[in-house]
Amino acid sequence: MDEQSFDIAHLAHVELYTDRFEESLDFFVNVYGLTLSGQDGESAYLRAWDDYEFHSLKLTRHHTTGIGHIAYRASSQAALERRVAAIEASGFDVIGWVDGDPGHGRAFRFKDPFDHVFEIYWDTVRYAAPDHERPKLKNVAQRYHARGAHPRRIDHLNLLAEDVTEFRRFMETCLGSRVTEMIRLDNGRLGGAWFTINNKTYDLACTEERGGGHGRLHHVTYATDTREDILRAADIFLENGIHIETGPHKHAIQGTFFLYVWEPAGNRVELANSGARLILAPDWEPVVWTETERKKGQAWGLKTIETFHTHGTPPTKKGH
Amino acid sequence: MDEQSFDIAHLAHVELYTDRFEESLDFFVNVYGLTLSGQDGESAYLRAWDDYEFHSLKLTRHHTTGIGHIAYRASSQAALERRVAAIEASGFDVIGWVDGDPGHGRAFRFKDPFDHVFEIYWDTVRYAAPDHERPKLKNVAQRYHARGAHPRRIDHLNLLAEDVTEFRRFMETCLGSRVTEMIRLDNGRLGGAWFTINNKTYDLACTEERGGGHGRLHHVTYATDTREDILRAADIFLENGIHIETGPHKHAIQGTFFLYVWEPAGNRVELANSGARLILAPDWEPVVWTETERKKGQAWGLKTIETFHTHGTPPTKKGH
Amino acid sequence: MDEQSFDIAHLAHVELYTDRFEESLDFFVNVYGLTLSGQDGESAYLRAWDDYEFHSLKLTRHHTTGIGHIAYRASSQAALERRVAAIEASGFDVIGWVDGDPGHGRAFRFKDPFDHVFEIYWDTVRYAAPDHERPKLKNVAQRYHARGAHPRRIDHLNLLAEDVTEFRRFMETCLGSRVTEMIRLDNGRLGGAWFTINNKTYDLACTEERGGGHGRLHHVTYATDTREDILRAADIFLENGIHIETGPHKHAIQGTFFLYVWEPAGNRVELANSGARLILAPDWEPVVWTETERKKGQAWGLKTIETFHTHGTPPTKKGH
Amino acid sequence: MDEQSFDIAHLAHVELYTDRFEESLDFFVNVYGLTLSGQDGESAYLRAWDDYEFHSLKLTRHHTTGIGHIAYRASSQAALERRVAAIEASGFDVIGWVDGDPGHGRAFRFKDPFDHVFEIYWDTVRYAAPDHERPKLKNVAQRYHARGAHPRRIDHLNLLAEDVTEFRRFMETCLGSRVTEMIRLDNGRLGGAWFTINNKTYDLACTEERGGGHGRLHHVTYATDTREDILRAADIFLENGIHIETGPHKHAIQGTFFLYVWEPAGNRVELANSGARLILAPDWEPVVWTETERKKGQAWGLKTIETFHTHGTPPTKKGH
Repeated sequence: MDEQSFDIAHLAHVELYTDRFEESLDFFVNVYGLTLSGQDGESAYLRAWDDYEFHSLKLTRHHTTGIGHIAYRASSQAALERRVAAIEASGFDVIGWVDGDPGHGRAFRFKDPFDHVFEIYWDTVRYAAPDHERPKLKNVAQRYHARGAHPRRIDHLNLLAEDVTEFRRFMETCLGSRVTEMIRLDNGRLGGAWFTINNKTYDLACTEERGGGHGRLHHVTYATDTREDILRAADIFLENGIHIETGPHKHAIQGTFFLYVWEPAGNRVELANSGARLILAPDWEPVVWTETERKKGQAWGLKTIETFHTHGTPPTKKGH
Repeated sequence: MDEQSFDIAHLAHVELYTDRFEESLDFFVNVYGLTLSGQDGESAYLRAWDDYEFHSLKLTRHHTTGIGHIAYRASSQAALERRVAAIEASGFDVIGWVDGDPGHGRAFRFKDPFDHVFEIYWDTVRYAAPDHERPKLKNVAQRYHARGAHPRRIDHLNLLAEDVTEFRRFMETCLGSRVTEMIRLDNGRLGGAWFTINNKTYDLACTEERGGGHGRLHHVTYATDTREDILRAADIFLENGIHIETGPHKHAIQGTFFLYVWEPAGNRVELANSGARLILAPDWEPVVWTETERKKGQAWGLKTIETFHTHGTPPTKKGH
Repeated sequence: MDEQSFDIAHLAHVELYTDRFEESLDFFVNVYGLTLSGQDGESAYLRAWDDYEFHSLKLTRHHTTGIGHIAYRASSQAALERRVAAIEASGFDVIGWVDGDPGHGRAFRFKDPFDHVFEIYWDTVRYAAPDHERPKLKNVAQRYHARGAHPRRIDHLNLLAEDVTEFRRFMETCLGSRVTEMIRLDNGRLGGAWFTINNKTYDLACTEERGGGHGRLHHVTYATDTREDILRAADIFLENGIHIETGPHKHAIQGTFFLYVWEPAGNRVELANSGARLILAPDWEPVVWTETERKKGQAWGLKTIETFHTHGTPPTKKGH
Repeated sequence: MDEQSFDIAHLAHVELYTDRFEESLDFFVNVYGLTLSGQDGESAYLRAWDDYEFHSLKLTRHHTTGIGHIAYRASSQAALERRVAAIEASGFDVIGWVDGDPGHGRAFRFKDPFDHVFEIYWDTVRYAAPDHERPKLKNVAQRYHARGAHPRRIDHLNLLAEDVTEFRRFMETCLGSRVTEMIRLDNGRLGGAWFTINNKTYDLACTEERGGGHGRLHHVTYATDTREDILRAADIFLENGIHIETGPHKHAIQGTFFLYVWEPAGNRVELANSGARLILAPDWEPVVWTETERKKGQAWGLKTIETFHTHGTPPTKKGH
């Protein structure tokens, strides 16, 4: 395990664009069950009940759907500086330093070759729950208010890229991420790759763009404590008229128990549970799935639904 | 987060002594649901179905119960060497290099001030499942054979020490462990501390010895994917005449869902599930529980059973 | 199985007294997760999401806590008349016909020898969900709104009586109930008996009064679909400052997974799950537990908490 | 509710034909997790751990797959006699009295218009667990041995018929069954009907034959205590190379959580969990689903897999 692997601590937050801001916000608060930390200008800041920072989801009013930016937190100030130097030397597009979102300090922004915007930062403010959100157990960040699906913490996101191999080079070079699992297509290309920066099985996945888009998002995911939370969420989504795309079921890749829905503006959102699975081996060898294996569908034989291969946000004419 | 924190990758295995070897082995294989990787001389090597190394439990025939040694795997050869240098410079007792157990290479042994034996190593052999243990999903280490309680992986152990503050100094100095939660007694002493070396909430806990013993074990724990696995295990333990000490219930400290039993020789063994909880913050501040808070009992108000405070292995006259 | 056994269809509702009406109502709606069907004078009418009648809980403002009345629905008009004739001939106290609560027709009232008031009726009105409570699935009574613990349906209640044998004679004579399990004390008395009128394992339990009261309630219970619902409810109760008396755990008697709390006025309320257990045998022989077996505690060895033996409502000086 | 409705107590057992007897038996014992009660001639007698009779599945070596006979137990000797008289007067095909399978007394046999053989009986022998199957809790029929999927009790079966309306007349006339839910096709025919004789939501379903067969079986189902048991079973089936047809998912009709597999000879076998759902209303009105509603798929939007509409046993050329 390369020493640089420890410079980044974890996925911190994702900015999601919506062209139906009020409906999306209502969904994330009352159905998905996040907590509104604050709001300013065109954005709402949301968090799961055990996220330790101010927000893990920034929901921004926009003329399209899709992804705004992706933020990772560094392991220390020194680690941040090492990463910035490496990124600047890498040849990948640099945006430079920006004032951070509310709740964290200055962030260094850069782009992957498919125009997704990333940032890394160190300074942050631990979430201080207001009185009505103060938990009874002092080792969790916030009250377990049990509203909606109510996942525990942000888990990962999935981007689409025209060239997954090139995206992989970006993740390894800029963040020091490791690939834990990947799909090798019959034509030799990478069909998808799952990355982690810590002991989680993955915090970011990239799959090949098949809908004719560029810089698109496939989905954003929060983690629940149990699989039962996900079964229960399915009933909640059903009752609230949310489009359930597929699941609850179990992925073959990563073995994650999953449920995918489309929030009112069309962004795909997942709930996932990995059980006790972690990547603890420092010399973990990526698991490689063939195209044939992939076509078998999910772990228990469910065929992958067509929209899962084509729908991304913002939608395109070719795909969705 | 100190850079040294990344030198150790994870808790690897624990050696458990038993003075009822056959009964203990039968328990761990047929009731607890581990897999026998191999056996030699006085020891059996056991693993959970998704542990990636040869063994995570070494069960050794002995004239007493209790703990043999505790093994952590380093993050790289260089990291191992850094740790060895730090331990040698620390003043804590060094045993030195030993040939490792089957399945891993040379290990460096040393002792905490309460005579528990630790070892760290780098070289290992990834578990290669024999045909009848080969899984249908290539990203898990072994077949899910569903025999007994069948936990997924080793999780943590709990040692007893006469001075938890001194034990903490040992863990921070020798392994680079962080304290995630701790108990501060009214008399100022640490009543317990929970340590982690990675993103797990803890891989080792140390609580104050109250039974008059020295170098004792409180318990060894494996992780299940779900809380339901633990409820189901309670029925399995009941049907097999295994002493259920306490649980299933939820700890206030760490929020772990737990079940404690005594294996036939008397060593306390736990099954635990932490849901999606991880320690992702690189600058996590230890949660400090007061003696008063501790006396409230478990998360949902269950009073802690008396034997939990006194029973350790090997048993003593004063306690158990 | 005696033909009379089919005259009564099921436990229909329970009237609970509270001397903290507003707090109790807030608990039942927002924490326990029932739905308010309506309100009149001194009473609120509440229902679980899949109860098919207007209400299954009548919460009444009163100068004490405890039980108002217990209602069972008959299997038909003819069955109702047969039961009325049998009760009138039985020698047990008859109150006579009363106008029913909102949502059902005339009811015939009578008393057990310990002054608990029972009623039976036939005419009822199937609950018609208002628009905002209309479910997406047409085979359930109401929207799954997922607020609070949100149990599925009323399950059973537990009364206290000075003479359980005499109470048993009352239940067999007046309702045609069967005993499915019971406790035989060393002194020969019945310590408790569990009754059913249909395929449920029990809809009413009676245990010996040990707190010096008369006509008291031990608890009222709603059923959840899963054990996980109950684990989740424990966190909800904890966060809302509700006194958790004991559980989640599994009863030896009836094998029910349980959780007991005290609602704000002090009435004990349970959530329970019986899994797939039903009493299908028409010639089921009551399971008899000895005092020794009872003292072993719950299924997985949890000792029964002292208040469970003494607390009832309304409280007494001797007990609680 | 008609008085005749109480004459039959419950579905008792199903005889299943297999042309791969050894493989089917191995599946039912080691993978599905039933217990072998006994064996004679061409049949093995199997039971779930909490079935109270000798067997609930009779597995018979045969030149085809499919259904042998379906047995219901009467509520009393008098009730049995009433039913026999009603069946004899009904005009449906009578086979007459036969010696029962091991474990129960004489049975009266008759046929539905589609040549499925039914029997009803009263005399039975309560299962007496041999020493190694004796449970630690005296209120369950047998040890919870935790081998394989290990469901709790037989739940229901699903037959195929060319005319569901005529099948309904048979069930109402001969058994006094009630329809709890049904599908009304656009052409006016019944597409399916779900029947119950007690408080279960259904113990027998009949759906329209679309594969060109006659007298065929769609599936046989056992009930688990939890949904988690079914998720776990999916992993067990996967590891054992059993064909998973569809699920785990939740039916819209009846709201059952389900998983369908094909045992080695091709008979479809289900595991199901209904949560706390029961039919308690004596005047329950059948829920009617339209063809349009049915086409929406399962509760959470999963489209019904094609083989589910055509595969039955024995297979036909047209369907499967």
